[in-house]
Amino acid sequence: MTEIEQKIDPETGPEHFSPEPQDPPEEQDGYTLDRRNVAAILFAVDTGDREKLVELMEPLHAADIADLLEQVNAYDRRRLVLLYDREFDGEILSELDDSIREEVIQLLTPDVLKEAVRELDSDDVVDLVEYLEEEQQEAVLDALEDSDRHAVEQALSYPEESAGRLMQREVVAVPEFWTVGQAIDMMREREDLPEQFYHVILVDPKMRPVAHVTLGKLMASPRRTELSEITEPSFRTIPAMQDEGEVAYAFNQYHMISAPVVDEDERLVGVITIDDAMIVMDEEHEEDILRLAGVGEGSLNDRVTETVKQRLPWLAVNLGTAVIASLVISLFEETIAQFVALAVLMPIVASMGGNAGTQALTVAVRAIATKDLTGSNVWRVLRRETLVGLVNGLAFAVVMGIVGLIWFGSPALGGVIAAAMVINLVVAGLAGIAVPVVLDRLKIDPALASGTFVTTVTDVVGFFAFLGLAGTVLL
Amino acid sequence: MTEIEQKIDPETGPEHFSPEPQDPPEEQDGYTLDRRNVAAILFAVDTGDREKLVELMEPLHAADIADLLEQVNAYDRRRLVLLYDREFDGEILSELDDSIREEVIQLLTPDVLKEAVRELDSDDVVDLVEYLEEEQQEAVLDALEDSDRHAVEQALSYPEESAGRLMQREVVAVPEFWTVGQAIDMMREREDLPEQFYHVILVDPKMRPVAHVTLGKLMASPRRTELSEITEPSFRTIPAMQDEGEVAYAFNQYHMISAPVVDEDERLVGVITIDDAMIVMDEEHEEDILRLAGVGEGSLNDRVTETVKQRLPWLAVNLGTAVIASLVISLFEETIAQFVALAVLMPIVASMGGNAGTQALTVAVRAIATKDLTGSNVWRVLRRETLVGLVNGLAFAVVMGIVGLIWFGSPALGGVIAAAMVINLVVAGLAGIAVPVVLDRLKIDPALASGTFVTTVTDVVGFFAFLGLAGTVLL
Repeated sequence: MTEIEQKIDPETGPEHFSPEPQDPPEEQDGYTLDRRNVAAILFAVDTGDREKLVELMEPLHAADIADLLEQVNAYDRRRLVLLYDREFDGEILSELDDSIREEVIQLLTPDVLKEAVRELDSDDVVDLVEYLEEEQQEAVLDALEDSDRHAVEQALSYPEESAGRLMQREVVAVPEFWTVGQAIDMMREREDLPEQFYHVILVDPKMRPVAHVTLGKLMASPRRTELSEITEPSFRTIPAMQDEGEVAYAFNQYHMISAPVVDEDERLVGVITIDDAMIVMDEEHEEDILRLAGVGEGSLNDRVTETVKQRLPWLAVNLGTAVIASLVISLFEETIAQFVALAVLMPIVASMGGNAGTQALTVAVRAIATKDLTGSNVWRVLRRETLVGLVNGLAFAVVMGIVGLIWFGSPALGGVIAAAMVINLVVAGLAGIAVPVVLDRLKIDPALASGTFVTTVTDVVGFFAFLGLAGTVLL
Repeated sequence: MTEIEQKIDPETGPEHFSPEPQDPPEEQDGYTLDRRNVAAILFAVDTGDREKLVELMEPLHAADIADLLEQVNAYDRRRLVLLYDREFDGEILSELDDSIREEVIQLLTPDVLKEAVRELDSDDVVDLVEYLEEEQQEAVLDALEDSDRHAVEQALSYPEESAGRLMQREVVAVPEFWTVGQAIDMMREREDLPEQFYHVILVDPKMRPVAHVTLGKLMASPRRTELSEITEPSFRTIPAMQDEGEVAYAFNQYHMISAPVVDEDERLVGVITIDDAMIVMDEEHEEDILRLAGVGEGSLNDRVTETVKQRLPWLAVNLGTAVIASLVISLFEETIAQFVALAVLMPIVASMGGNAGTQALTVAVRAIATKDLTGSNVWRVLRRETLVGLVNGLAFAVVMGIVGLIWFGSPALGGVIAAAMVINLVVAGLAGIAVPVVLDRLKIDPALASGTFVTTVTDVVGFFAFLGLAGTVLL
């Protein structure tokens, strides 16, 4: 570990090239699209000032332009794309949200589309077309050169969300017995090195990857060094059929930068780099968060009808569970008719149980996703959650017992709500862990379905315990 | 775009080195710690068989060993660490969860600790010590060599969760006017190149980074090429004081691999690589998910007391809001006493509102985090959510109207619950967007506090609308 070496000679002459100021000094959150910028761009669109538009868009990263297109309304989007015309870059398409992408592709003339997609790497084109409707997919594929089209079609032959779809086919591989000098010479001669690569992959005569060497090590080693002497210990290969979520997990867990992808015969078919893995991880997290909230997928860009379609089924499921809870309440109608205070207090017990259950289940769902909750510790975790539920339950039992007593002047009512609170929080802790674990064993995504089950359990148990105890004690 | 070139000569002789089978062919989810493996390791610990333990642990990645230590109970963990003794690797410490890390460090003898931390890069040591208690922090720092200790202390002088804490200080920088040949020669001579690096940074005479060149481009270019001719267009610098969440956002948004970190005078002080950014992104997501569920932080490894401490405050807040909802109900005690059916049905209205609100707020919280919900589209989004709430509300109004009619034989009751449903779902959509947006403007983390506010609104509005309408219509 050394600090930065001041290898720069302070005497050295004038600068050879004057770099443009790449970025204005950024504020703490300096990456948001500037509102004034958006306004200026929309003004250029309003006035049909193409030159100004191009000038304003020029410094923006494709990802920011995509964000801009997502934020403006459909009318402005259409005018902007049409005015921008042939400046439109393939990368912008790559960055666009699926729902907007189809709309934008329809606006592009065949010529613009052709030029846009031809700039992209094969893995980006795959990413671009995989969720397009058939007609549009054809249009994009037709725009490609034959060899590229072939590469993309082959990638599409892998299942959705597999490593095969994620990988790029451009790789740098050399025989395992080569030296540093041979590898460097080959790279200097080769005209078509990938845009970004971080390792030279060593392969055996059957094209099976056996190790890899970082470019940094290659740089630092004498030419005669055998590549096999400077390989990375962390080397791993990825099966082409592996789920992309697992790929992202491996990159994160093992701090990988790039890894070769192999077919079922262990032969090299491509390479996945960490930036692709990071995008997948981001998407998987997004999915988990939305699923936990009962939103299958969905973004702000979806139309009203789509949003309704995404959310309605979850609300329908919730209605079903709410009706079950209501049926439990209806068993005790007579009790409630005599003590209306029960109707006032009963939502508290249910609500506390629901919240405690959600806490436990969220921790469990995350732990399952990160492989921290397994067969070897599930019983310990269950025991622990029961204890947590008990402690929290007792704490709130005391509080609610006092509230019940003061509010309604009935020690018996205070006792009932206290007991119901303890029961429901313990059950919440247990259900919060058990439900996601069981769902996971049944190969059902725990993020998707746990919430409904757990809150049904806590609602039913909460109402039953509270009203049942009240019926016994108070009547 | 080209496919893999078959540069391997099929004639070439026997393999020079026979690579060990690095991994057994992985199944679809091949990264979980094998349960049999865990059992075998624990058996070796039980029998005090050090040799067997080392043999079993040898092939495991430090991250997996850390997971193993987190999964076993404290008693086994202690015995395992003591038996493993000087095989204990610094990287395992880095990978450990904060809560377990302190416990493990206490088990290590000073000698073992010293050797463990000396292997680590400065940024890993920073990550290791930053959340340790003072005494332990001192012990780790004392184990370092002076220069390293100095580097770590300097990093610790940056604020928590800043780019300065995240960066590594080992960089590869050259004067901006150098050629490819000069850069390569320098790297070959330099003894202390960082373990992993992806770019050569070009700096001006004042050590201000002006551009960078990928190692791949360096490899592929003739020696006499000026570095300034082959720089990356995507170059960005990161201020050392920037929040690490913003750094992770930038890496993900702009597909960066590494970026120089600069001080307030724009001078190079370190470099951040994508693998660090990926870890931060993972942590931020985790935090968001847990906060949305009302769990501040927390993992399965926390002790019962810690878990109770984390969850109790949220449950207390929820109790407060539940009591507010109960107060609303108590306004209508007389109405309920006359129509007990109201007590049976009222949780349905509240529950549906709560769910619809959670859906909307989750989408909004995510959109704020990814900077997709901004001043330029917030009104459009609000309008859209109101519409979604209206459509869903009408759909469930019809259903519940019919349920109310059939169940209780009262068209008026059916009408009341239908109307309350529409009102509450519209309010849920509005509150679900407005609450996180306002909290964000007030610089309060919307993931943390939105849920409570939104469900309070939907509970209060739900009970008020339903019972209020019932009081007017049915009495």
